Amino acid sequence: MHQVLINGEWREANHSSSFNASNPATCEIVPDDYPVSSWQDCDAALTAASTAAGIMATLPGSQIADFLEKYAELLEQQADEIVALANLETALPVSPRLADIELPRTTGQLRSGAEAARDGSWTMATIDTAAGIRSMYGPIGPVSVFGPNNFPLAFGSISGGDFAAAVAAGNPVIAKANSSHPGTTRLCAEQAQLAADQAGMPAGTVQLLYRTSHEDGERLVGDPRIGATAYTGSRSAGLKLKAAADAAGKPIYLELSSVNPLVILPGALEQRREEIATELAGSCLMGTGQFCTNPGLVITVAGEATSQFIEDLVSQFTAAPVGTLLSEGVQRSLGDSLAILLEAGAQLLVGNSEGGGSGFSFANTLVQVSGQQFIADPETMQTEAFGNASLLVVADNVDEVCTLVDHLEGNLTGCIYSHTEGQDDADYDRVAPRLRSRVGRLLNDKMPTGVAVSPAMNHGGPYPATGHPGFTAVGIPASLLRLAMLQSYDNVRPHRLPAGLQDKNPTGNMWRNIDGDWSQADVG
Amino acid sequence: MHQVLINGEWREANHSSSFNASNPATCEIVPDDYPVSSWQDCDAALTAASTAAGIMATLPGSQIADFLEKYAELLEQQADEIVALANLETALPVSPRLADIELPRTTGQLRSGAEAARDGSWTMATIDTAAGIRSMYGPIGPVSVFGPNNFPLAFGSISGGDFAAAVAAGNPVIAKANSSHPGTTRLCAEQAQLAADQAGMPAGTVQLLYRTSHEDGERLVGDPRIGATAYTGSRSAGLKLKAAADAAGKPIYLELSSVNPLVILPGALEQRREEIATELAGSCLMGTGQFCTNPGLVITVAGEATSQFIEDLVSQFTAAPVGTLLSEGVQRSLGDSLAILLEAGAQLLVGNSEGGGSGFSFANTLVQVSGQQFIADPETMQTEAFGNASLLVVADNVDEVCTLVDHLEGNLTGCIYSHTEGQDDADYDRVAPRLRSRVGRLLNDKMPTGVAVSPAMNHGGPYPATGHPGFTAVGIPASLLRLAMLQSYDNVRPHRLPAGLQDKNPTGNMWRNIDGDWSQADVG
Repeated sequence: MHQVLINGEWREANHSSSFNASNPATCEIVPDDYPVSSWQDCDAALTAASTAAGIMATLPGSQIADFLEKYAELLEQQADEIVALANLETALPVSPRLADIELPRTTGQLRSGAEAARDGSWTMATIDTAAGIRSMYGPIGPVSVFGPNNFPLAFGSISGGDFAAAVAAGNPVIAKANSSHPGTTRLCAEQAQLAADQAGMPAGTVQLLYRTSHEDGERLVGDPRIGATAYTGSRSAGLKLKAAADAAGKPIYLELSSVNPLVILPGALEQRREEIATELAGSCLMGTGQFCTNPGLVITVAGEATSQFIEDLVSQFTAAPVGTLLSEGVQRSLGDSLAILLEAGAQLLVGNSEGGGSGFSFANTLVQVSGQQFIADPETMQTEAFGNASLLVVADNVDEVCTLVDHLEGNLTGCIYSHTEGQDDADYDRVAPRLRSRVGRLLNDKMPTGVAVSPAMNHGGPYPATGHPGFTAVGIPASLLRLAMLQSYDNVRPHRLPAGLQDKNPTGNMWRNIDGDWSQADVG
Repeated sequence: MHQVLINGEWREANHSSSFNASNPATCEIVPDDYPVSSWQDCDAALTAASTAAGIMATLPGSQIADFLEKYAELLEQQADEIVALANLETALPVSPRLADIELPRTTGQLRSGAEAARDGSWTMATIDTAAGIRSMYGPIGPVSVFGPNNFPLAFGSISGGDFAAAVAAGNPVIAKANSSHPGTTRLCAEQAQLAADQAGMPAGTVQLLYRTSHEDGERLVGDPRIGATAYTGSRSAGLKLKAAADAAGKPIYLELSSVNPLVILPGALEQRREEIATELAGSCLMGTGQFCTNPGLVITVAGEATSQFIEDLVSQFTAAPVGTLLSEGVQRSLGDSLAILLEAGAQLLVGNSEGGGSGFSFANTLVQVSGQQFIADPETMQTEAFGNASLLVVADNVDEVCTLVDHLEGNLTGCIYSHTEGQDDADYDRVAPRLRSRVGRLLNDKMPTGVAVSPAMNHGGPYPATGHPGFTAVGIPASLLRLAMLQSYDNVRPHRLPAGLQDKNPTGNMWRNIDGDWSQADVG
């Protein structure tokens, strides 16, 4: 039985049961046993995290940066072992993906977090010299991170974007591993703890539990010692955690489901139908469709070009190899979601059968409805079919597209493809404002599946895509603000102010807002 | 029966019952009848607000600024009538207070909101030229504002800080009047609607309902057409609205109760005991103690100076005139809260009787407990006694003060008074970090009751003072971010970007973050 990481030590879990991961490519159980921790483990982790939070609040950003950079280095040194186990537990390819895309993204995020911590500009230090009041964002307290199944490293609970953001903002992390890749998470946690030791971080800076009961998970996110929670995963589990955190007044950031509507205006298909079909099929099937930003809802307008486009797409879905899914649960859930769409009247274009690839798999699938069908039952039609399946909507005209977009729930992304010479511009101007208020990121002529780690990224959006439309889970420094509290200092004696709020600029290049203007200068 | 303001028109309410305000100074009913609106009124307001939101999202910030400035002017022109009615409905003095403090604060906030809307820097425009991604905060959609009883103008649902922030961020407002001053709210709304008309704003920009059933209020804040809600008021009513908004995934910002701990270290009392007693009594009794930042919990360390300090304070509380309370409800609730503290073992120093002033009133009251008593039952001891009453805690030593501070709930403010020559500095360094993580604004040697409208203000704090520790309700532009959503543009064609994200700086002085640096320049 593997050990949990609590208060700087790998120790036997207090547990009543255990679980195993599966190898999705062979459908076989991986023999390693992982404990389902009892509340006693959660309680011990919370206490250690509280103590760590008090110490971390006094550390300079440079020390936190040293830790994150050291951790990135250690992950790179252990890359082969980590990537091999991640491949075993998730069936995601080593290359191109785990070794050459996801791991570099992961270490890149950790280093961006380090840069943000060292620089300090993320704290939005605001100085009102006339009123004698100064404010900045500071750590919010221990952050519990629940990672998803589909990015074992880049969104991993002890290695991903939420982890990097939480630590960069000065908070300890209690990681709850995703049950589909506990070993990968363990290997990362080992390096995280080594790096924390080497950087002189307090004992409870990074902690790892593999799994808890649902009740203990809910108790954890609402515990008085918790500062905030970051969750990425299924809507049903996320909403239970949200209810528990909300009831306790604890911030919780959720990245839930999203169908990522993609509107293709008529001129775009007339101009470059084949190119878009290829691009769309690639985006839909990449990673076997298991991305939060997978284009699951494709909205077109009826016409000759659209009919040909759909034929192109069906050919590509048919010809493309069928990838392995992350787990038996993903395979089952994909079939269940498609059954809901088909029962509601969607027409099957291709696919809808289990198997076809190695291990857990499901045929590349396209289903289709009319605009009227969608508008008649928009809730059902927005059922997320997570995986290599998408719903095509063929509307009668752009009026119907507008009505349809008005019925969309909150989503992470929304794309509009249009003619490059402006022929669709009048239609764009009708569709775009409607879509804008429903999505976190609006794209033109580009598939949503690449989520750049950019300060201008919004990997977020209105509920139910996330729990709050004001925050992004990807992109540093913006993602740090979720895991921070606003702290104002009124008439506080100068030597007692945090370094970032003293007259002298602590680094010489930290950006601060001084009397309404952003500046890298000292005050006065 | 007075009319409600829906979709730009004053119209008969759809209502089943009505209510009246009281004159707190005479305990008499004010004869004007106000309707309790049915859901039909809420629904009509929501529909009109949705339409208005779509239009407002396309308006330049300068037009929104014109509206807010025109409104401020009209309020000033109608100042005599508005202040007279506010005085009648709240018993707050005309001067010093309503005419010369609260109204100028109100119009100042509206003008600050206008400045923020015109300037655009509040949107935190972020441009990543390499990635082709740009983001900014944009309007969140219709905002429902529930104002408190204690600031009929400066926190009023159609005139206060939440209103100014919501509109400045580009959102229509559905105002729910506080039932204690419906007439004041009506007079403000009349000017708001006139100003909106004059500025060419869409019909549903400002709307007013006086009251709804609790059920309809909960339905309102969770309605799909709502963007967010701002609430200031009692904890019990606020938490019901929070539960409803949370369940619907709608952001809600709450300013609930706060006892505003004030720690007086031993050296401060040895140095300037009388001065602090006078300052504290003034802060506790100003406005008959009816401020969200009223110092309701005063923490001292036992000693000779402290005993004398308490005597001074009792003398001042005894000698000070007894003010009028805002309502019969406030009078009753104050007595109820004190009964809870006394029953839990607090010792009565002075006061604790109804009456003593004009109309609704209650004797200036001080109660006292030991540090041990507080620590034994911290939840009860943090019962807010809203009004002219405070709880004094006399701890045995600074160790006990530290333990006590560790038991504090989230508060808006926390103050520490210390010796000016540094004699308390070691103690300060122990107490301050503990207090810091529990309050939104940390003060030194200053009472918390003045809440400056500063960009560095945090009128917020951890739950249960508010619903989220990352946001302030006072201070522009920071307060606008609560009522905004993050909107990212990925590969969007340049001419389709909002003005604030195009290469050319739209005003020539809007602050934007371009490739990591804040700048007022054009891109490139």
